[in-house]
Amino acid sequence: MSDKVTREAQIARDVGIVEAGLDSGSLSNVRYLLNFSLPPADIADLIEASTPQERQVIWKLLKEKHRGEVLSELAEDVAGDFLENMAPKELAEVTADLDTDDIADILQQLPATLTAQVLHSMRAQDRQRVERVLGYSDDVAGGLMNTDTVSVRPHVTVKTALRYFRQLPALPQIFDSLLVVNTDDRLLGSVSVNSLLTADPSTEIKALMDEEPVSINVDMASMKVALLFEKRDLVSAPVVDGDGCLLGRITVDDIVDLYRDEAENHIMERAGMDAEQDTFAPVMKTQRRRAVWLSINLVAAFMAAAVIGLFEATIEQFVALAVLQPIVASMGGIAGNQSLAIMIRAQVLGQINRGNIGWLFSREVRAGLLNGVLFSVLVGVIAWFWFEHAALSWVIAMALVVNLFIAAVAGVLTPMLLQRFKIDPALAGGVLVTTLTDVGGFFTFLGLATIILVH
Amino acid sequence: MSDKVTREAQIARDVGIVEAGLDSGSLSNVRYLLNFSLPPADIADLIEASTPQERQVIWKLLKEKHRGEVLSELAEDVAGDFLENMAPKELAEVTADLDTDDIADILQQLPATLTAQVLHSMRAQDRQRVERVLGYSDDVAGGLMNTDTVSVRPHVTVKTALRYFRQLPALPQIFDSLLVVNTDDRLLGSVSVNSLLTADPSTEIKALMDEEPVSINVDMASMKVALLFEKRDLVSAPVVDGDGCLLGRITVDDIVDLYRDEAENHIMERAGMDAEQDTFAPVMKTQRRRAVWLSINLVAAFMAAAVIGLFEATIEQFVALAVLQPIVASMGGIAGNQSLAIMIRAQVLGQINRGNIGWLFSREVRAGLLNGVLFSVLVGVIAWFWFEHAALSWVIAMALVVNLFIAAVAGVLTPMLLQRFKIDPALAGGVLVTTLTDVGGFFTFLGLATIILVH
Repeated sequence: MSDKVTREAQIARDVGIVEAGLDSGSLSNVRYLLNFSLPPADIADLIEASTPQERQVIWKLLKEKHRGEVLSELAEDVAGDFLENMAPKELAEVTADLDTDDIADILQQLPATLTAQVLHSMRAQDRQRVERVLGYSDDVAGGLMNTDTVSVRPHVTVKTALRYFRQLPALPQIFDSLLVVNTDDRLLGSVSVNSLLTADPSTEIKALMDEEPVSINVDMASMKVALLFEKRDLVSAPVVDGDGCLLGRITVDDIVDLYRDEAENHIMERAGMDAEQDTFAPVMKTQRRRAVWLSINLVAAFMAAAVIGLFEATIEQFVALAVLQPIVASMGGIAGNQSLAIMIRAQVLGQINRGNIGWLFSREVRAGLLNGVLFSVLVGVIAWFWFEHAALSWVIAMALVVNLFIAAVAGVLTPMLLQRFKIDPALAGGVLVTTLTDVGGFFTFLGLATIILVH
Repeated sequence: MSDKVTREAQIARDVGIVEAGLDSGSLSNVRYLLNFSLPPADIADLIEASTPQERQVIWKLLKEKHRGEVLSELAEDVAGDFLENMAPKELAEVTADLDTDDIADILQQLPATLTAQVLHSMRAQDRQRVERVLGYSDDVAGGLMNTDTVSVRPHVTVKTALRYFRQLPALPQIFDSLLVVNTDDRLLGSVSVNSLLTADPSTEIKALMDEEPVSINVDMASMKVALLFEKRDLVSAPVVDGDGCLLGRITVDDIVDLYRDEAENHIMERAGMDAEQDTFAPVMKTQRRRAVWLSINLVAAFMAAAVIGLFEATIEQFVALAVLQPIVASMGGIAGNQSLAIMIRAQVLGQINRGNIGWLFSREVRAGLLNGVLFSVLVGVIAWFWFEHAALSWVIAMALVVNLFIAAVAGVLTPMLLQRFKIDPALAGGVLVTTLTDVGGFFTFLGLATIILVH
């Protein structure tokens, strides 16, 4: 291994050759690398990083037998472009060798009538397995599971189990424990591969069995499943129904995907976008999606403008107010989003409970007020040097204290309210908190100015 | 299993009992559950979700032998509070049974002199292993790896390998493949546990060996390692030095932790915060950290105010300008952050290359201009109904188009520039883009107003 190029370096080089080949149009090399050298995940990355035209070229060069795995690695949006043009029979063939959860993911993107046709084109056994997973959404354990488990009865010996393994077409790729079930398919326990490797072949499975393995109810929320994998350092876990019967298995590779998606989601959410929104989508599609978020913000901006409008007469007398007003609003926005981020993180980690919410709330308010006082002194002094108007300095200083208090309250309460109404706080929280601190900031600043400077 | 409460349900119940016990002060039950029932990760969660006083109570009730594992699960900030009060000898004992990467993580939080003392208190062999990992930062593969690998020579038989396994104190907890090395410790390949389980005992290891396993250079960036695990669905991977010699092993549980941290980071970054910033830290600590980000924003806000100040005379004549100015700035801020999010995600995924950056840039600009035109018409019409001043409507409409163009350019170029200067775009990008669109928005809107309305 040390004298030759590592596999990963070779893949990186091949990706470079494909990119150059697509640019120059010399495609024979590209076709070879796509079908005989590059792994599916890298082909998917290559497709996602290509312009819409190049994507079609890559897809056409790709042999049918590779298309299924590439499809399962692609972002939904990009996969959708290819799915539209595939016949149900072709799709059934292309996806035949995928894991059941991956097939279900792909089918869920199709219109219901088309899904039925694809299922109809499958072998009976495959159809049954896929239909079982299709019954569950991606948000719960059932949607993450594979139905191809390996299980044995408790009274067989290790030797018998190993003989059984050799008869299977293949052991699952991620195989860290053997599941043990009774004749009703109820999960009794699990045996780690480590025990299987080191046990005497005549040992009964029962003797090696962990009787309290982590098991996952089919209805458990996906993010809870992910947290469980993280907490217990799991590689795989059995999925059971309400009666404890074995339905399938979740493997850590799907959890890694889930967390990666989660990380991406948080990048996109701060701009009100969906992670599946595709970097390389056509302009019109992009523009339409973003317009939704801009519209929501426009309503918020007009609300802020309306508040300023209430104080037109005051601003006419003191134009300095128009100059300083963004400072109060923007400082409040930042402080509010700081409290919001702390709360969202705590919600995601399940750290908030009745016992500590009061303490948490008071801490945010105290931190907000402390920073309010600190920055009000600073801004007050700068404003005094700038406009040499003592009363104006007092007004902006007081407005800052009030708005940082509003920010702390809004930052803590908004995510709690949104969660109660089942709206994702990470998505809607930012624009709501910013609106509250904008409106609050303008109202406090211009209102105080009207009282103190005008009257 | 089906007739009794599952292990997870029992843990959840026990956590509830501990929380109630801490509230009421009846601690004997709490002590029992902490030391004989709850897994370390759940104790760590419990500590993180407790107030600073309760944390000390839990820590004191926890037996020494459990403290090491709990420490390795805690957020840095919270762990730091306990580490401060521990003697080097106690720390060496408490961490003795942890994985090398976990010990290294804990030691890296200590002052250098203290680290040396803790290392000195360790057994010689442990010290050597930990020192090897301590040489690498958390940002590279070396910092993630465990040094306790299991490896064999290529010419031994499966039977011999299995006998060797039985002599080890224990096989590693996550063990999906056996590494094969030559006498110089160079990595030759790997054998999957699946092959070991199903092979005839007399088979030579060499015959089962994958000669091109994924191997990770010790200097590879952690996020690249994580992407590799995700792409190849890995459970573990060997770490090698520049000569291909085996140094250690990275397991998927550390990758899951990495991705979870990444997801948390993105939640916090949008408010300029660090994920290790602790939800339950004392007020003063919290306030000081947030003040840094508020200060940066204050500079940006004063820059925006200064731009408005340039146009005081114009605003004096048309107070409606002060009312409408936040609309132009905030729409630009949203649009800019949308482009920014797309770019950051593409950077994280390594989707940007020389071949597509031009296409991407032009797409962002076109999408920005399209939305600019759309919203300028909308805002122009609303402004006309509000102020019944045609020229003013034209001014805000034009300013919006220009600012959404600025937003697209800033959203694409800012992350590229930041990356070149090795500043995290996810952290600093938001405040920079918002500053550019604020300043640009105010300047365009008030500047156009001065030209069109005053002159």
